[in-house]
Amino acid sequence: MEIVINKDCFSKAVSDVCKAISFKSSRTILTGIKLVVKEKCLIIVGSNSDIFIEKIVPTVLDGESVLNIIEKGSVVISAKYLSEIAKKLPGDIHIKVNHNQVVTIQSDGVVTSLNSFLSEEYPNLPNIGDANFCIVPRQDLFEMIQQTAFAASTNDFHPVLAGVSMTFKENHLSFTATNSHRLAFKKIRINANINTNIIVPNKTLNELIKLIDEKIDNIHIFLTNTYIVFKANNVALFSRLIEGAYPSINGLLPQECKTTIVVNRTQFLKGIDRACLFASEWKNNNVQFEIKDDSKLIISSMSTEIGKIQETQSIMELKGDIGFRITLNGNFLLDVLKVIKEEEIRLNFNGSMKPVFVEPIENKSNYYLISPVRSN
Amino acid sequence: MEIVINKDCFSKAVSDVCKAISFKSSRTILTGIKLVVKEKCLIIVGSNSDIFIEKIVPTVLDGESVLNIIEKGSVVISAKYLSEIAKKLPGDIHIKVNHNQVVTIQSDGVVTSLNSFLSEEYPNLPNIGDANFCIVPRQDLFEMIQQTAFAASTNDFHPVLAGVSMTFKENHLSFTATNSHRLAFKKIRINANINTNIIVPNKTLNELIKLIDEKIDNIHIFLTNTYIVFKANNVALFSRLIEGAYPSINGLLPQECKTTIVVNRTQFLKGIDRACLFASEWKNNNVQFEIKDDSKLIISSMSTEIGKIQETQSIMELKGDIGFRITLNGNFLLDVLKVIKEEEIRLNFNGSMKPVFVEPIENKSNYYLISPVRSN
Repeated sequence: MEIVINKDCFSKAVSDVCKAISFKSSRTILTGIKLVVKEKCLIIVGSNSDIFIEKIVPTVLDGESVLNIIEKGSVVISAKYLSEIAKKLPGDIHIKVNHNQVVTIQSDGVVTSLNSFLSEEYPNLPNIGDANFCIVPRQDLFEMIQQTAFAASTNDFHPVLAGVSMTFKENHLSFTATNSHRLAFKKIRINANINTNIIVPNKTLNELIKLIDEKIDNIHIFLTNTYIVFKANNVALFSRLIEGAYPSINGLLPQECKTTIVVNRTQFLKGIDRACLFASEWKNNNVQFEIKDDSKLIISSMSTEIGKIQETQSIMELKGDIGFRITLNGNFLLDVLKVIKEEEIRLNFNGSMKPVFVEPIENKSNYYLISPVRSN
Repeated sequence: MEIVINKDCFSKAVSDVCKAISFKSSRTILTGIKLVVKEKCLIIVGSNSDIFIEKIVPTVLDGESVLNIIEKGSVVISAKYLSEIAKKLPGDIHIKVNHNQVVTIQSDGVVTSLNSFLSEEYPNLPNIGDANFCIVPRQDLFEMIQQTAFAASTNDFHPVLAGVSMTFKENHLSFTATNSHRLAFKKIRINANINTNIIVPNKTLNELIKLIDEKIDNIHIFLTNTYIVFKANNVALFSRLIEGAYPSINGLLPQECKTTIVVNRTQFLKGIDRACLFASEWKNNNVQFEIKDDSKLIISSMSTEIGKIQETQSIMELKGDIGFRITLNGNFLLDVLKVIKEEEIRLNFNGSMKPVFVEPIENKSNYYLISPVRSN
């Protein structure tokens, strides 16, 4: 293969596909980037075997010629070196594979020779020829991810909980994430009559946000039995699904509610942030809450050696029983308050031992559950 | 003691003195911040026993009342908690020490109680009453530090080499730093007839740059037998000196010069930066240089497994012998090229085995020496 390619264009594409690559992978071939030169484009692929990122560079981009194809072919080159070199070369990049599989990369007076990997060993991209698909606005999809994925489990103890459950049903798409101590849920309307449940790794969704440009309006989602594929313009992210059954959340939602309060999100968030300063010694970042007679919310925490903090906040609205105390993981509550966009939020309590239900008042599309911490 | 202090003012002062504190210090008292309330100001001190940072908050700052003194006294409080709380409190901060040495910190509805340390255990600041002193423009001092301190040793094998040698002599101040494989030197004129040699820890100088605001014009330098003190406005950095004799550098400077070349700094820097990509497998970041018949400089490096890079750069001026090769530590050369400001630099060579002398052409105040790497 032989091409001459615009430096900035190549460097950006290589750095994008590098996001999928684990430079320390034990499979040497996956520490490389695959370049495939076709009739009218260059395809660049990076993978860690669970995720593939594919970027297509056409010969002309935004009316400007960026790629000159001299000879078709393919090669796999060390991702680490290729990405660093691409950034540092002075101008247009001339890439040529010799017969002995040495790759020469030239730019002005700079000549680099790199040994290549055997490109036949590189795993194939999953086939999405007859997959179900739908189109979701990028902004909606990103908001769903940001408002739910944080609640997924970060350990590998229950593999399904390290993913986000995506449910397609009756023209709606919902995301659920839980680590069994907290839960986040969001649902939006989509224009696609797909009915299926899948579990997507949390990591995939975080990578997607880093990968897709803010200029992109819509993302195509393709579904196969074992893969989900997100496509936008010239870039695609393929991810293996997590196998297994996601726990049902229907039984978790509280059917009744003994106490409801409405608070200002920003003020509440700042108070918990302060209380968390003293809570870090506890495994569950214990922060205490108490609702008093006079419609005041008292937030407090203490560190055995250092001291304690306590503050009183006013409640905007109060219904039901008062006078109880509950201990929550302050960090779990902070995570929720950071992703809710609305300023007025409702908290439903069922005493000290039952999960707290949190939702924005003006928006019924997302809600959160946080289990209390058993404190003595 | 008891004061009410402006939040931003207190928070900035606490965060400044925290720069001196090692939160993991084995001397518990040094994990604290000392507050001393005097007649007309609050003095805040942080230290790791080698460095002290002292910040003075007056009652009125820039025409605005920032400190209300209710009762004089002193206390030492956990630096980690105090700095975090100061940032997160909602408004003016009321600090009061109770009789049982518990400190109450209050702001609007937020009440914090912190246990304090015994303030008598806190080490005293060195006395600079009758110390020698001089005044140096901040910009000159910072440039001296930036252009030399990087060359100091980063290990503790030779304690004196972990410092920068400061020589005051005949109205001049010079800085020398070396790790015995490279050396950096810079000299400026100052208005003070002090004659002395001291060794200042590299860390102190780096802290100084982070501590002193860009708005400051002049820095006062005080010298005692065991301390150097940098003072500017309401902040002072006290640092213990390194004991011992700094090696003489006079014998190191080459007396003759077999080959001199002049190159463009930016172009040279980019070339070495590229070559360093392939040099990281070698302990000394081996980069090869060769000056050829046709006034060309060839820069190259190779990695045994990955491949090699080579580029040809043009030389602006050439005098003396050519045709030799030399191997240098690419990172050492990069460090030098990054801190020189002038675009035309001169390199003097004395064959493959002798140090290379580097200096900007238009400026004789700073120069650098780099020893070659013995390669096979």
